[in-house]
Amino acid sequence: MTELLSIILAAGEGTRMRSSTPKVLHQVGGLPMIGHVLRTAQSAGASSIALVVGASSERVRASAMAAAPDALVSEQHERLGTGHAVRQAQAAYATAKGNVIVLYADNPLVSPKTLAEIAKRLDDGADIVVVAYRPADPTNLGRLLTLDGRLVAIREHKDASEDERKIDLCNSGIMGFKADALRGVIDRIGNANAKGEYYLTDAVELANADGRRVEYVEADPAEVVGVDDRSKLAQAEATFQELRRADFMAAGVTLHDPKSVWFSYDTEIAQDVTIEPNVVFGPGVKIDTGAVIHAFSHLEGAHVGANASVGPFARLRPGANLGEGAKIGNFVEVKKADIGKGAKVSHLSYIGDASIGSDVNIGAGVITVNYDGYNKHQTVIGNNAFIGSNTSLIAPVNVGPGALVGSGSVITDDVEADALALARGRQVNKPGRAKDIFAAAKAEKLNKKGL
Amino acid sequence: MTELLSIILAAGEGTRMRSSTPKVLHQVGGLPMIGHVLRTAQSAGASSIALVVGASSERVRASAMAAAPDALVSEQHERLGTGHAVRQAQAAYATAKGNVIVLYADNPLVSPKTLAEIAKRLDDGADIVVVAYRPADPTNLGRLLTLDGRLVAIREHKDASEDERKIDLCNSGIMGFKADALRGVIDRIGNANAKGEYYLTDAVELANADGRRVEYVEADPAEVVGVDDRSKLAQAEATFQELRRADFMAAGVTLHDPKSVWFSYDTEIAQDVTIEPNVVFGPGVKIDTGAVIHAFSHLEGAHVGANASVGPFARLRPGANLGEGAKIGNFVEVKKADIGKGAKVSHLSYIGDASIGSDVNIGAGVITVNYDGYNKHQTVIGNNAFIGSNTSLIAPVNVGPGALVGSGSVITDDVEADALALARGRQVNKPGRAKDIFAAAKAEKLNKKGL
Amino acid sequence: MTELLSIILAAGEGTRMRSSTPKVLHQVGGLPMIGHVLRTAQSAGASSIALVVGASSERVRASAMAAAPDALVSEQHERLGTGHAVRQAQAAYATAKGNVIVLYADNPLVSPKTLAEIAKRLDDGADIVVVAYRPADPTNLGRLLTLDGRLVAIREHKDASEDERKIDLCNSGIMGFKADALRGVIDRIGNANAKGEYYLTDAVELANADGRRVEYVEADPAEVVGVDDRSKLAQAEATFQELRRADFMAAGVTLHDPKSVWFSYDTEIAQDVTIEPNVVFGPGVKIDTGAVIHAFSHLEGAHVGANASVGPFARLRPGANLGEGAKIGNFVEVKKADIGKGAKVSHLSYIGDASIGSDVNIGAGVITVNYDGYNKHQTVIGNNAFIGSNTSLIAPVNVGPGALVGSGSVITDDVEADALALARGRQVNKPGRAKDIFAAAKAEKLNKKGL
Repeated sequence: MTELLSIILAAGEGTRMRSSTPKVLHQVGGLPMIGHVLRTAQSAGASSIALVVGASSERVRASAMAAAPDALVSEQHERLGTGHAVRQAQAAYATAKGNVIVLYADNPLVSPKTLAEIAKRLDDGADIVVVAYRPADPTNLGRLLTLDGRLVAIREHKDASEDERKIDLCNSGIMGFKADALRGVIDRIGNANAKGEYYLTDAVELANADGRRVEYVEADPAEVVGVDDRSKLAQAEATFQELRRADFMAAGVTLHDPKSVWFSYDTEIAQDVTIEPNVVFGPGVKIDTGAVIHAFSHLEGAHVGANASVGPFARLRPGANLGEGAKIGNFVEVKKADIGKGAKVSHLSYIGDASIGSDVNIGAGVITVNYDGYNKHQTVIGNNAFIGSNTSLIAPVNVGPGALVGSGSVITDDVEADALALARGRQVNKPGRAKDIFAAAKAEKLNKKGL
Repeated sequence: MTELLSIILAAGEGTRMRSSTPKVLHQVGGLPMIGHVLRTAQSAGASSIALVVGASSERVRASAMAAAPDALVSEQHERLGTGHAVRQAQAAYATAKGNVIVLYADNPLVSPKTLAEIAKRLDDGADIVVVAYRPADPTNLGRLLTLDGRLVAIREHKDASEDERKIDLCNSGIMGFKADALRGVIDRIGNANAKGEYYLTDAVELANADGRRVEYVEADPAEVVGVDDRSKLAQAEATFQELRRADFMAAGVTLHDPKSVWFSYDTEIAQDVTIEPNVVFGPGVKIDTGAVIHAFSHLEGAHVGANASVGPFARLRPGANLGEGAKIGNFVEVKKADIGKGAKVSHLSYIGDASIGSDVNIGAGVITVNYDGYNKHQTVIGNNAFIGSNTSLIAPVNVGPGALVGSGSVITDDVEADALALARGRQVNKPGRAKDIFAAAKAEKLNKKGL
Repeated sequence: MTELLSIILAAGEGTRMRSSTPKVLHQVGGLPMIGHVLRTAQSAGASSIALVVGASSERVRASAMAAAPDALVSEQHERLGTGHAVRQAQAAYATAKGNVIVLYADNPLVSPKTLAEIAKRLDDGADIVVVAYRPADPTNLGRLLTLDGRLVAIREHKDASEDERKIDLCNSGIMGFKADALRGVIDRIGNANAKGEYYLTDAVELANADGRRVEYVEADPAEVVGVDDRSKLAQAEATFQELRRADFMAAGVTLHDPKSVWFSYDTEIAQDVTIEPNVVFGPGVKIDTGAVIHAFSHLEGAHVGANASVGPFARLRPGANLGEGAKIGNFVEVKKADIGKGAKVSHLSYIGDASIGSDVNIGAGVITVNYDGYNKHQTVIGNNAFIGSNTSLIAPVNVGPGALVGSGSVITDDVEADALALARGRQVNKPGRAKDIFAAAKAEKLNKKGL
């Protein structure tokens, strides 16, 4: 495979986002937009990545470094157009051998397939390849003038003739170059235009004049959407979700109402999983075959074993790891906890920092008390144990296999295997007292009202 | 009414579903697809039903038997086309007297109205009636060649002329026959075609050649959707839901956002019920007039009395039965329990296997401890009783009318009417000790960090 | 600004709503439809409002009076058309000096912008201004015959010629008048038509005949939707929500999936707030900058401070007031409570009638026991206190700053600053007893089954 350098432009200000967060760090499918573009470049085989950021975008730089530690980062101090931005990556493209693809960090949905098509064209003889698309409304967009499959020029809307304006094939801005071709044109791009900026698209005309071969590939309009406000961000999110939903259904996952299930960029779901309406998958979730995720569930950083059942109204937080056939029921939160094979936590519980054995039954309202205000402590429950309802387990604490904890207990000490543990007050009934108490409360109420 | 035999073809493999569950058992509106078709056939007055299943579809057979115990089931051992499939029901149609309608178990939304129209045409003199529809894109579908209201032939796409391909009236596969007409053609259908299969649609040409009268009725495209992958399953579900939503709104039910409410095939809702966004109705729910179902509620097998209030964030499970004006609040689960008139369970509770009297007030965090690991036990609470918050009621247990249970109690013994019951520890305050404990915890934390 | 009288017609029966609630009291965005129209009239500068209600619409009158106490209410005893309805407001328009706008209470989405445009036209010389729109299907609607920007006549569908039926500009019914012009025509409107009713639109013809200037303004079709059944109500709600969603995104609010967030008419959200899918805003909510509202949250009458975090699965009820950076987690309900800066209520709790200090940590399953069946009592918790899990705080009660309450306690008495409070039973372990108990339960189960 030909060497590939990907230059990613991430210096845009994004003032229309009205946000204190840099534009390219806004998320789609649980991942910052720049992360999507980095992943796509990597999956398209980019052997090196050059990132061009704004003058003071420390957060952008940090986010990118986490995903692509070897990326070469340069700063664009003045915003003088895409051509100028690419020049900031001169250190990267100066010695590049193969192909160069210029991507935009606010263009999160460009597909590996499109990048592969660019690379193929370059390998087959093109010097420059522009990614085109046919938008619903091409007004104000640059039109592609083509001849016999070649791209002759990109005509800006204001300069276009009546006939040229009828062309609906538009410029997305994404471009591929043979490294030589890029070096051959980049410094010759001028700024003799209304805004005094350097436009990378001018490379098309320069290259054609040099007799170089300029081509184009056509992408789905949804793929090249540029996000510059929250409405377009929502639109990109919607497109992302639709793609994921279609993928999962094709792979044998049942979605009762696809539009009410939200995935993250890295969600993994096996065949024959059923997902009811209204389920949110944060990053880091993996679901094994046969599992059912009931309505109103929220999962993040969790693994759900085969044939397990989650929800309705369940929340799995990072580190939740459900064994085969385990059940997490309604109003239950699980965090950093292994739930054994066939174990059940059916109602109103919080299980955090815990290891729950197989076939354990956790009653309603059970809480692992894992935090003392400073430290987190561990709860360990052995196989087949039964924890009565409304119990507090004060960690660190161990409950042995087969043990039984009485309802309403506060368990501070370990419980041995097969033992019964109780920690609660004795019941006292006071005949007739309820009547007196209600009468007093009623009197108080009337009194307050001045009656 | 003319006798009606319905032959339901359910032998399709459904490999595109990518599922270990037989295709026709996948659900729409909480009912397997085959169940929808059985219900529709029954509601259209089918006096007998013949089901053709695949060689080893025990689960399909069992599901169908549950819904239609008298159905005659036969197996199609080889998959040689729809004509061949119908022949497997020979024992049923050999002696049939009136009309025969052939349906498909993966065609869950065909309407009783369409079946009634078929029956009417047959009664009015037609020998065969084909259900037609106009799809958005007719490419690759069989076109209906008609003349003066008669169906002359069904032309497969590949055999169609340029002009015939402009026809948008297509064959759905659903067909009605006079029993005589079916017997007259079925054995003459041949397999001299590319796939070597026997196509039921060939009956049209044979019947026309015999001088029989062949007609067609037109159905809504959404009604005849054939489900063969999870995407089409989701589409059928969406159509089903839209129909139900429109029905309920026409009947005087307010749906704030219809698209975010999901019904089951048997949901019953009275006039002047309000349903907020994000409500899921599993099978078996009935809601009486004036009730309000707040957002994020999940109901299944439950009855909600007049003017009762459910949710937000409530779950009613099978056997939940709410009296008039009862209130089930947030993070509350009710299962197999009668909730009396005007009774309130407002927060964070689990009420299972219980009988709650009228005007009872159940505090927050109350749990009926109904399960000992092997058996379920009953909790009975009398009228006007008041159960303090965070109480566990260890069933079997009775709390008498007008009784008061103190917060945080574990009630193991019955409480008499008007009595006060307490079962909890006494409070001890230890001045200054919190400071010491926090200091120690902080020290532990620093210690762990090696500071 | 010219004086403005708004006449609001609210006498329609709304039988197609199939409701015991008067039509105009059905809600859109959490406000009765009539409330929307009153607000719009007020924000368009109406100095006086005349409301025409049906003979016995006490509930409509009461609802309107609450929003516009100075409105002049009159009753239309017989329903004899819009012209007749307007005449019931004679006491209001008889002495009106400036402009008069006639609105409909089942037309909830008419915009202040459209009313301003009417007023401008009247001020610029028009005598009557009709609000027009272009519906998707104009069949059966009255068409506007225009000439040089003037409105010449409104032609009813049945009276229209073939050519006139091609006109897609239709009459919405909303009209503005110079007060003089209204007085000049209103009593001359006759009822010589099929239904024997008095149509306000006849004013157009009368005024033109008088040589008065009649104009029209065009509104968005979604804006003039008239609600007369629950399906149109849902449609109006959808339009309302779409407008709000677009507004918030433009203002710098992130909505991951706009279609799954529902706002009320008065929701206020600052820039850089993030709202995950599935959030319901009831009336009276204000969210400060940087806050995150996680999925499956339900807020009403609540204030969320800057950078606070709510949900998933949180419910804020009226009077919930979250300080900066506070956190309300899953399965938590907050009502009439101040939650201090940086305080955390992370899991399964009910906090009602309470004042929680800054940096307080409330454990899982904590309940403020605020209700004795008759009265509500207050819980006060000082800064930096730590309330252990599964604790009941029996109000009225104070927990001092820096205090620590042990898990599972029932706190009935005040806790001093820095004190430790415990109120729970001691743990007893009974070796081997679990085995015996399980064996007995198992035997009981087998016994029940007759085994």
